[in-house]
Amino acid sequence: MKRIFLPLCLVASVAFVQSCKMKNTTSAVKGDADSKVYVAPGKYDEYYNFVSGGFNGQVSVYGLPSGRLLKLIPVFAVFPENGYGYSEETKAMLNTTNGQIPWDDQHHLDLSQTNGEQDGRWLFANANNTPRIARIDLKTFKTVEILQIPNSAGNHSSPFITENTEYVVAGTRFSVPLGAEDVPISSFKQNFHSTASFISVDKNSGNMSIAFQIVLPGMNLDLSHGGKGPSHDWFFFSSYNTEQAYTLLEVNASQKDKDYIVAVNWKKAEEYAKAGKGKKVPADYAHNTYDEGKQTATSVIEHDVLLLDPKDCPDMIYMIPCPKSPHGCDIDPSGEYIVGSGKLAALIPVFSFSKIIKAIGSKQFEGDFQGIPIIKYEAALYGEVQKPGLGPLHTEFDDKGNAYTSMFLSSEVVKWSLKDLKVLDRAPTYYSVGHLMIPGGDTRKPSGKYLVAYNKITKDRFLPTGPELAQSAQLYDISGDKMQLLLDYPTIGEPHYAQACLASLIQDKQVKYYDINKNGNEFVTMGEKKANVVRKGNRVDVYMTAIRSHLVPDNIEGVFVGDDIYFHVTNLEQDWDIPHGFAIKNNPNAELLIMPGETVTLKFTPQKQGIYPFYCTDFCSALHQEMSGYLRVSPKGSNTPLKFGTGETADTSAQK
Amino acid sequence: MKRIFLPLCLVASVAFVQSCKMKNTTSAVKGDADSKVYVAPGKYDEYYNFVSGGFNGQVSVYGLPSGRLLKLIPVFAVFPENGYGYSEETKAMLNTTNGQIPWDDQHHLDLSQTNGEQDGRWLFANANNTPRIARIDLKTFKTVEILQIPNSAGNHSSPFITENTEYVVAGTRFSVPLGAEDVPISSFKQNFHSTASFISVDKNSGNMSIAFQIVLPGMNLDLSHGGKGPSHDWFFFSSYNTEQAYTLLEVNASQKDKDYIVAVNWKKAEEYAKAGKGKKVPADYAHNTYDEGKQTATSVIEHDVLLLDPKDCPDMIYMIPCPKSPHGCDIDPSGEYIVGSGKLAALIPVFSFSKIIKAIGSKQFEGDFQGIPIIKYEAALYGEVQKPGLGPLHTEFDDKGNAYTSMFLSSEVVKWSLKDLKVLDRAPTYYSVGHLMIPGGDTRKPSGKYLVAYNKITKDRFLPTGPELAQSAQLYDISGDKMQLLLDYPTIGEPHYAQACLASLIQDKQVKYYDINKNGNEFVTMGEKKANVVRKGNRVDVYMTAIRSHLVPDNIEGVFVGDDIYFHVTNLEQDWDIPHGFAIKNNPNAELLIMPGETVTLKFTPQKQGIYPFYCTDFCSALHQEMSGYLRVSPKGSNTPLKFGTGETADTSAQK
Repeated sequence: MKRIFLPLCLVASVAFVQSCKMKNTTSAVKGDADSKVYVAPGKYDEYYNFVSGGFNGQVSVYGLPSGRLLKLIPVFAVFPENGYGYSEETKAMLNTTNGQIPWDDQHHLDLSQTNGEQDGRWLFANANNTPRIARIDLKTFKTVEILQIPNSAGNHSSPFITENTEYVVAGTRFSVPLGAEDVPISSFKQNFHSTASFISVDKNSGNMSIAFQIVLPGMNLDLSHGGKGPSHDWFFFSSYNTEQAYTLLEVNASQKDKDYIVAVNWKKAEEYAKAGKGKKVPADYAHNTYDEGKQTATSVIEHDVLLLDPKDCPDMIYMIPCPKSPHGCDIDPSGEYIVGSGKLAALIPVFSFSKIIKAIGSKQFEGDFQGIPIIKYEAALYGEVQKPGLGPLHTEFDDKGNAYTSMFLSSEVVKWSLKDLKVLDRAPTYYSVGHLMIPGGDTRKPSGKYLVAYNKITKDRFLPTGPELAQSAQLYDISGDKMQLLLDYPTIGEPHYAQACLASLIQDKQVKYYDINKNGNEFVTMGEKKANVVRKGNRVDVYMTAIRSHLVPDNIEGVFVGDDIYFHVTNLEQDWDIPHGFAIKNNPNAELLIMPGETVTLKFTPQKQGIYPFYCTDFCSALHQEMSGYLRVSPKGSNTPLKFGTGETADTSAQK
Repeated sequence: MKRIFLPLCLVASVAFVQSCKMKNTTSAVKGDADSKVYVAPGKYDEYYNFVSGGFNGQVSVYGLPSGRLLKLIPVFAVFPENGYGYSEETKAMLNTTNGQIPWDDQHHLDLSQTNGEQDGRWLFANANNTPRIARIDLKTFKTVEILQIPNSAGNHSSPFITENTEYVVAGTRFSVPLGAEDVPISSFKQNFHSTASFISVDKNSGNMSIAFQIVLPGMNLDLSHGGKGPSHDWFFFSSYNTEQAYTLLEVNASQKDKDYIVAVNWKKAEEYAKAGKGKKVPADYAHNTYDEGKQTATSVIEHDVLLLDPKDCPDMIYMIPCPKSPHGCDIDPSGEYIVGSGKLAALIPVFSFSKIIKAIGSKQFEGDFQGIPIIKYEAALYGEVQKPGLGPLHTEFDDKGNAYTSMFLSSEVVKWSLKDLKVLDRAPTYYSVGHLMIPGGDTRKPSGKYLVAYNKITKDRFLPTGPELAQSAQLYDISGDKMQLLLDYPTIGEPHYAQACLASLIQDKQVKYYDINKNGNEFVTMGEKKANVVRKGNRVDVYMTAIRSHLVPDNIEGVFVGDDIYFHVTNLEQDWDIPHGFAIKNNPNAELLIMPGETVTLKFTPQKQGIYPFYCTDFCSALHQEMSGYLRVSPKGSNTPLKFGTGETADTSAQK
C-alpha cells in the first residue's frame, strides 16, 4: 500500500485535539444555564428540533431548550415498536427495486419553505445507502412518501430544497456507472458518473416526482444548499474526490489543493428539460406513497428518467474551485454568500453570488472539468476567513449577520462576521463536532437564540455504557456576543443535520386522532357489531375492534395450521392519546400500535397447532390487563368449525 | 354481549381523573427543581436508571437526575441500527421454536443481587408476548443470553429474582393448555394452566436453565417478587381472573371480591425436584447464548422440562386472598411485609410473613383453590392502608420505613408508613401512572433520594407530535417529608418497571473496547495484510479490516449474481468510542456497527449485476467520508476474475 499522505493540518491537529480533550473534560458552565434549559413539568418547549438519526435510519424530534426526546419517527428502517414495515399497511413504504430494505442511513433534513421561510408543512429526509428521499407530514408526524433515486449511490447531498419547495435535490456521493453496467472498477474515469437529481414537489399534495437528473463526472458530491433571493435560481453542491480515485480515497482523494463547488442553474435546467434537451433512459425505481385517507401505502415501480447532459445544455452548470475536499456548502440568509467548508483546509472561502454571475458573464474561466467550465477562484471569491480553526465542516447563520462554523479537528464552534470575515468568538465542543443547527439557520429568517452542535465523540461526557457510547448534542445560547454552553444531551442514533422551528409554527396543526367516520381503510370495522371473521380458501380476515377494555372478537376457533390470518384491528376510540396495541404469541412478525380511529393489519401464518393468546400491548385503562383473547389453531384437515365472538356470543356458531 | 359491570370505584373515578387533568396541567414546581436535575456539561449523573421499553422490546438506560437517555440496549426486537438480529453473529439471539421473532413486549427488569443487595453484574429482562427471559451483561451493556419459556404465555410476572440470584422466575399471565393441545377455548377450566417457572442462574457465568415449572390452575399470574431475610425461601405472585374466564375478561374477570397472592416455597420446591417428585415432559424451547469470547451467538433447542404438580408436593404453595384483581406484589426491605395492590380495590392490604407462617402452621385455611390451600385473609393480614386513592398498582420502599404506591385512576403517588399504615403524603402524576421506581426500592437496601413515576398518558404535557404521543417519567425528590416533583421527561417505548443503582456500582467495570489479541471470532482478520477474499462454491468470504480511515480490501471484483457474500469486518482500533460501521447499497439486510477489537459479519446476496458501493457508516475521522469502496457484481456465468485490494494492489490478481 502507498504511504499515506496526511495533510499538514491533520498532523498538527492531533496534539491540539488531545489537549482539548484533557483540559475541557470538567468545563464549568456559567451560573444561569440550569434555569435556561429547565422546562418545568407541564410547560412546553419553545422549539421543535428535528434531528436525523444517521445509522438508525429514523428522524428524532427533540424539544428545545430542554433537549428532551419527544418522538422517534420511523422513516427508513423497520420499527417493530409500532409495526412500521411489518403491518400490511406500511410494508410497501420500505419497498425498493431490490425488495423491502429494512435499514438505511438518514443524514439530512429540510423543512419545507415558502418564500425562503419555514412553512411547517413537511419535513424531507434522505437515505444515504440505498438512495431515497422521504417526506414526513407534520400534521401527523408520519412518513407519507418515499421515492427511490436511480442512477445514484451514496445519496448524501440530499434532501435540500429550493426556496419555495419547488424541488428537493439528491446528489451522488459514490459515483456509479449509469444503468448498472458491469464494468471494471478501474474504468472509473470513463464509466462512473455522479448525478444531481431535481425532484419536483407538488404545491398542494407535496407529492414528489423526479423532474430530471443532471449527469456529472465521476466524483463525490458531498453536501448542497439552494440559493435564496438573488441566487434563487441556483443550487450549489460541494464535491470532493475530483481526483477521480476509486481506491484508498483517504490518500488518493486528498491530492488536489482544490476541489469544486458545483453551481447549477436549475431554472435553466428546467427550461432545457421542457425544451426536450434531455434523454429519457430506462431506470427502475420505487415510488411509495402512504394514502392518509385509505390509511395504506402502495408502491409503484417507475421505469424511466430524464437525463440532462451538460454538454447539451450550455450555461447550466459551472465549477468553482474550493479548498480542500469541501464538505459543507451553505448559503447565507441574503443569498449572496456561499460558504464552502474544506474539511482539510486551513481557511474558509466565502464566495459571492454577484461576483459568480459577473465572472460567468465575462467568462473568467480557468479551463474545464470534463467539459464543465471552471470559474477562476478569485473571480468568485468574496473573501477568506483566516485561521478559523481546524477541519471546518458546516456553517449556519443567525439573524445578526454572523456565521457559525463547526471545526471537527479542533472540536469547536467558531463565530465570524459575514461583513468582514473576522472571527468573533470560539466555543469548545465535546468532541469532534459535525453539523450545527440554528433554528431557521439555513433559511432567509434565522433565529438568534440557540445553536446546537451535534458531536461524534463523547468518550468521557456521560456515564459509560460499555464499548458503545451515545453521540451527543450541545446547546449554546447565542443571543449575546459570546456563545454560552448550556447543556450536553445524548442523542438517538448518529445525529447529522437537523432543523428546528418555533413550536407555534406546527403545534396547532396537529391531528389528535383520526375521525372514524372518515376511515378509508378497506378493512375497517365500524363498530363492535360489525366484527367478523371471514374465510376465503386459506385466507382468514379477522375484522376486529379495540376499545377500552376489550377486543371483539376475543375468542376465535376454526383456524388451521398454514392459514394466512389477517387481523384488521380498528381502534374505535375518539380521543387523544388512547392508542391500542395488538400482538399475538409466537408470531414471527411485529406488533401493531393503532391510533384512535385507525385500522391496521397484522398478518399471522401459524405453523403449529395450539392456543395463541393475543392482547392489547399499550397500557390503556385500569382493565388493560384484561384486554386479551384467544385464537385456537387446529391441525390442517381437522374439522373444528369456525366460531368467534365475545361474551355470550363466544360459543355460538360462525356468523356471516 | 353482557352489560358491562363497572366496579364502583371506576365510575367514581372518571370525574376525579378529569378534574386532575384540568387543574394540574400547568402545575408549578418549587424553586430549586432546575438546579436539582441539572447535570452540567461534562458532569456525570448519579444513578443509572434501567427502564423497560415495553412495546419496543428493548431496555433503555437513563441517567438520573438529568433524565437523559444514555443508551438503548437491543434485547427482544431487531435493531437495524447496529445489526442486532441481522448480523450473522446475533441472528441466533432472537431464535425461538417458531423461528426468528423480530419483536417482543419488554415489561420488567431486575438487577442481580447478592444477599438482597444489588451487585451490578447482570440485568434480567422479560418478554411478555412470546415468553422469554434475557440476561444483559453490565460490563458491556450487551444482551448475552435469551431463554424461551415453554408451557406459558403472557410472561408477565417475570423476571423477578431471589435474594442471591439463585433463581429468576417467570409466571403465566395467559393460561394455555400444556403441550399445545388442540382443545376448545371453552374448556379453559379443565385444560388451561398457568405455570410458575424457576430458572436457575449460574453463580459465576450467569447462565440460565429451567430448574422446574410448577403447574397451577388456569388463571392470570400478574406480578411477583422474591422474599427477603426471613421470607428468603418464598416467592409471591399476584393473580387475577381466578374466575377462570376466557372471554370478555373486562367483565368476567372482575366478578370476585378477592383474587389471590400465590405464595410459593421455592426451597421446598427445589427439594421436591431433587427428590424426584417432578415429571419430565416433552417441551421444546430455545436457549440462545452470546459467547463474548467467540463474539457469536448460538441457539440450542431444549426438549424437555421438569413439571411439579402441587398435588404431589404438599406444603409448597398456598393462596392468600387479596382484594381485587391484584396487580403489584411487592415485598418490603425487611422481608416481613407483602403488599398486594388490587387495581380495583379501595384499600391496600399488607400481609405479614410471620403471620402467614403461623397460619400455615395452625392450618387457618378457608378451603382450597383447585387443590391449593387458601389461607384465611385475616390470618395473613398485617393491616390495610385505608383510602389510599383509586387504582393502586405498584409499591416501592425507601430507607426510612415508608412505602410509595402508584394510583392509576387517581393519577398520584401515595406515601404511607409501613409501621402504622397511615397515609403521609400524596403527589399528583401526569397522568395514569403505572410502575414506580426507587433506586434499590425492591431490595434490602433502598435509597431515599429519588422516586420515578412511569406514566401512561401525557396528552398535554409535551409539545404535540401527531396522534401518537410519548409516554413519560416523572422524577420526585423524596428526601424530605413531602415529595417534590422535579422533572417530566418523555421516554422511549412504553416504560413499565425499572431499576436504578448508584453509578459507582458499575461505572468502573465497563469494557471500553475489545482486546484484538483476544478476538475469538472465527472470521477475525488480524491486520490489514491478512485481508482476503475466499470463494468456496457460491459462498464468498470477505475478510475485511476497518481502521481510520479505510477499509481493506476496498475494491472487490469477480463476484456474481446469486453469490452468498459474507463481509467479516474486523475493527482494528484499540481505543474507546471509535466504532466503525459497514453497509452496502441495495442490501435487503441492515448495517453493522463494529466496536474496536470486534469482528461482525454482514451477509449480502446480490440479485442484480452492477457496482455496489460500501462504506463506513459511523463518522470516525476527518476522512470518514473517504472510508468507502466498491464491489463489482458480474452476471452469473461471466468470467470476471476474482480481484481485490487497496491502493496499488487494487488491480492485481486474486491472492490466496
